[in-house]
Amino acid sequence: MKVFVVNCGSSSIKYQLFDMNDESVVGKGIAEKIGLPMGIVSLKIEGTGEKVERELPLPNHEAALNTVLELLTDKNIIRDKSEIGVIGHRLVHAGECYHSSVAITEDVIEKMTECNDLAPLHNPHNITGVRTAQKLFPKAFQGGCFDTAFHQTMPDYAYLYPIDYSWYEKYKVRRYGFHGTSHGYVAQLAADHLKKPLDKLRVITAHLGNGSSIAAIQNGKSVDTSMGLTPLEGLMMGTRCGDIDPALVFFAARKGVSLDDFDKMLNKKSGLMGVGGISNDMRDNWKAIHEGNKRAGLAIKMFTYRLKKYIGAYAAAMGGVDAIVFTGGIGENDWEARQMACEGLEYMGVEFDVPLNKTVRATLKEVSKPSSKVKVIVVPTNEELVIARESYRLYNESKKK
Amino acid sequence: MKVFVVNCGSSSIKYQLFDMNDESVVGKGIAEKIGLPMGIVSLKIEGTGEKVERELPLPNHEAALNTVLELLTDKNIIRDKSEIGVIGHRLVHAGECYHSSVAITEDVIEKMTECNDLAPLHNPHNITGVRTAQKLFPKAFQGGCFDTAFHQTMPDYAYLYPIDYSWYEKYKVRRYGFHGTSHGYVAQLAADHLKKPLDKLRVITAHLGNGSSIAAIQNGKSVDTSMGLTPLEGLMMGTRCGDIDPALVFFAARKGVSLDDFDKMLNKKSGLMGVGGISNDMRDNWKAIHEGNKRAGLAIKMFTYRLKKYIGAYAAAMGGVDAIVFTGGIGENDWEARQMACEGLEYMGVEFDVPLNKTVRATLKEVSKPSSKVKVIVVPTNEELVIARESYRLYNESKKK
Repeated sequence: MKVFVVNCGSSSIKYQLFDMNDESVVGKGIAEKIGLPMGIVSLKIEGTGEKVERELPLPNHEAALNTVLELLTDKNIIRDKSEIGVIGHRLVHAGECYHSSVAITEDVIEKMTECNDLAPLHNPHNITGVRTAQKLFPKAFQGGCFDTAFHQTMPDYAYLYPIDYSWYEKYKVRRYGFHGTSHGYVAQLAADHLKKPLDKLRVITAHLGNGSSIAAIQNGKSVDTSMGLTPLEGLMMGTRCGDIDPALVFFAARKGVSLDDFDKMLNKKSGLMGVGGISNDMRDNWKAIHEGNKRAGLAIKMFTYRLKKYIGAYAAAMGGVDAIVFTGGIGENDWEARQMACEGLEYMGVEFDVPLNKTVRATLKEVSKPSSKVKVIVVPTNEELVIARESYRLYNESKKK
Repeated sequence: MKVFVVNCGSSSIKYQLFDMNDESVVGKGIAEKIGLPMGIVSLKIEGTGEKVERELPLPNHEAALNTVLELLTDKNIIRDKSEIGVIGHRLVHAGECYHSSVAITEDVIEKMTECNDLAPLHNPHNITGVRTAQKLFPKAFQGGCFDTAFHQTMPDYAYLYPIDYSWYEKYKVRRYGFHGTSHGYVAQLAADHLKKPLDKLRVITAHLGNGSSIAAIQNGKSVDTSMGLTPLEGLMMGTRCGDIDPALVFFAARKGVSLDDFDKMLNKKSGLMGVGGISNDMRDNWKAIHEGNKRAGLAIKMFTYRLKKYIGAYAAAMGGVDAIVFTGGIGENDWEARQMACEGLEYMGVEFDVPLNKTVRATLKEVSKPSSKVKVIVVPTNEELVIARESYRLYNESKKK
């Protein structure tokens, strides 16, 4: 059985095709520039490592997905699309409706539509993706994982904002959290690694990529996380600011900055990019540092300092911590960022293994000393695999009924 | 020598008159409703405890201050205003100009005026206060303490926001911090109590009143604090929200909420008042809880949970902590809030003395167990005394020159 995992954005579709016999990825890629005069579809064939690209106009998501299927068929990865029995969608926002992955029904789509307000940049495109997949794969099972679902276990005092309560009642304004699929996955792998049940552990998971978030997971449940109503809050990111003084917007208005420009500044021109002025990518910032760029150094210092403060905050929230997990592009690969974030945490029981940590990259590995009370673990994330597994599981369950 | 400490707001002047021979307060009170059809001036005479109030129109700050002087003279607290040799002003914002208290010169007023942009609700009235005092006390020495001064020691990675760096260069947008006079004072008293030099300690000071902020003080220097560019950021407060998702403003705009209304909501209708819906005062919220009001309980839980997370964050920032200090109306008087904020902090070395803490109110007292590695101390603050002392010190220094 093949499971096709898709992540639909406004102008792109990321995909991975899984063979569930061994959970291997048989092909993956991206369709980009949908709706622009010229689009591009790529496919990387796992195993051979061959990469194919095709340029052509992609007027809409259906055209893009059809081109992906053509590529997969042309390259003999599938005979035809009937081989794909399950589609797994990466979905962003389910408000307070779903606590876990779902079999997509009309009711689910309706609930997602109701959440468009909360995620206007993501949910409408997720729905387009589902509709397109339903049309192209009328017989396939459609499943989905919401980025927000895992965090639905947060207690009210953690998910509510300290604002007029009626905004929660009227608009459902609250902390939702994102990257839930990743936080849940790496926390479980960390528990497996420690040979302890996750529901007996206090774990802090730091998912650090171009978008970054951190979660406090107590007894297997997310009890707090840094992204909130939107993915702008929390940690400093590639181009997003994270936490700032909420009154900055009033200052900006007095300076004549429009709300739109302010939005663009916080979302597109802040974070590592905004402070360092070089790039949203940590690797470019490290390169700049080694060439003597001080602002890039400041950007990385801020990134890791703010991360460290969140680790401290979540340790306090859970009354201590058993394991700190680093994942995502930066968390898995950037030993210097991990070291900076863990410096000085001895007081909470962290004994960081500095030399060992330098050698660890993109592999599941403990980077604290064996005597460390708090384990620090690098865990590669794989959100697509979780979506494939969950959708496949839901498919099998639906067949039993 | 008498020192007159004044705190000028838009429509009020708070004052305390000190006799510096023994640093006693000989009279204090407030002139309110300046500029309204009917104003009110109060005086509490220390010692006798007598309280006097006078109702009359106060068209401006000069009229208000003159009425205060009449009251002080009528009640024989001063013979005439020439007895007052030093005026000490509470001042809010000095941008990056001053790291300590100042003798007020034309240059200082110019620098304050340049900061009006950063504190439009406070600085212009502070300047009015200075100008009025200069007019009424032409021979007196004018000194002042800035709320922001103590925090000027923060490192750049703590005071900068993760936004476009040009906003710092162009507009001086950064974390400034407030309540500096209080944080510095109670940290020093805590060190004195511990019989250790402040410059060898890591102290977290939580100033909890209607406005609340918390500071990380390492080796005697403020290295981080929760209020930022404005006093809206950080902890949850009486009516102010503190930290929220900065993207909430964009959501509000999509809902048709004006920026002005959003400003009012965050500053006047949030915090304890916003969540509990009862009052900005902790005491009213506790009363409501005991009458079975669940939302008041939620408000206090959020208040203390967010405070606890900041304690954890600042412990991480300093690589551990030697003392946690509670001050301000809530910090000094609310044993339950202190207990809730310290629950679960054993992992960082806090052994909180639950029964002892219940007995401590408005007095300098350790509320951790003798064996506690991290000392928890209640320290009553006295910003007016610091302003009196500092202004008097600067006066004496000016005479030596």
